[in-house]
Amino acid sequence: MTMTLTEITPAECYRLLEGARFGHLSCCNAGQPYIAAIYFAFSNGVAYSFTMPGKKLDWMRANDKVCLHVEHRLSGDAWTSVVVEGRFQEFPDSDVWRSERLHAWSLLQAHSDWWEIGAMKPHELPMLEGSPHVFHGIAVTAVSGRSAMRTN
Amino acid sequence: MTMTLTEITPAECYRLLEGARFGHLSCCNAGQPYIAAIYFAFSNGVAYSFTMPGKKLDWMRANDKVCLHVEHRLSGDAWTSVVVEGRFQEFPDSDVWRSERLHAWSLLQAHSDWWEIGAMKPHELPMLEGSPHVFHGIAVTAVSGRSAMRTN
Repeated sequence: MTMTLTEITPAECYRLLEGARFGHLSCCNAGQPYIAAIYFAFSNGVAYSFTMPGKKLDWMRANDKVCLHVEHRLSGDAWTSVVVEGRFQEFPDSDVWRSERLHAWSLLQAHSDWWEIGAMKPHELPMLEGSPHVFHGIAVTAVSGRSAMRTN
Repeated sequence: MTMTLTEITPAECYRLLEGARFGHLSCCNAGQPYIAAIYFAFSNGVAYSFTMPGKKLDWMRANDKVCLHVEHRLSGDAWTSVVVEGRFQEFPDSDVWRSERLHAWSLLQAHSDWWEIGAMKPHELPMLEGSPHVFHGIAVTAVSGRSAMRTN
């Protein structure tokens, strides 16, 4: 039995991202990277999510280059992973960003387990208005993926 | 039912790291972060691992500041996560680093599923000598962790 790694196509990467909701996001500040687990909804080349104020948000505001890593375990021992290089884009609570906030919110509210992030009641999404949560997107600038399969 | 986040102590972080084998490692280059899943063995403040030559290794050689993220799902909905800021340290195949390589290898060979990384036969660790794999450690410089529990 041997496991073999193969590159997957960008189209396959996008399909995986569209079906995913959980991943790891990295940002960096003065050469020091930081990782946090995030829940997101992916649509049209953007991973939509929200965050509370804190270190991650401060760092992404200072440097919008981020990385999103998503893995998908298949049956048996196989797995696929996708790495996105992207740009952080905040959707502030203003008229200019209203449609983008609504779009993000409509995608995110389709899932019911955001409370897993913690400090949130189950089935309770951040309010679209007047909430400390910051809605944001990660716009893909580059994507690559790999798949590991048992080949014999 | 509400999920509540609490900080965990450094001692609790180390206990989680010592029991973990899988996590996500981030490095960065010119302000762009990158994430890869890694298997490791943690001992005495160092996460030991190995990697094939490639982008991750090139970037860590150029900038040794890295981040390791490990999460542990508990029963029910609870989870704990630990974030390590650390320094990449390579253990090259030379006399100077021989004992560190042996230590890394002895910790890593205690596990039998390294092949999950892909492109490796099951139960086959990289050879200590004459292998393209690079043994390395992530030495902790800062650690923090959070735990999410159902509080009612």
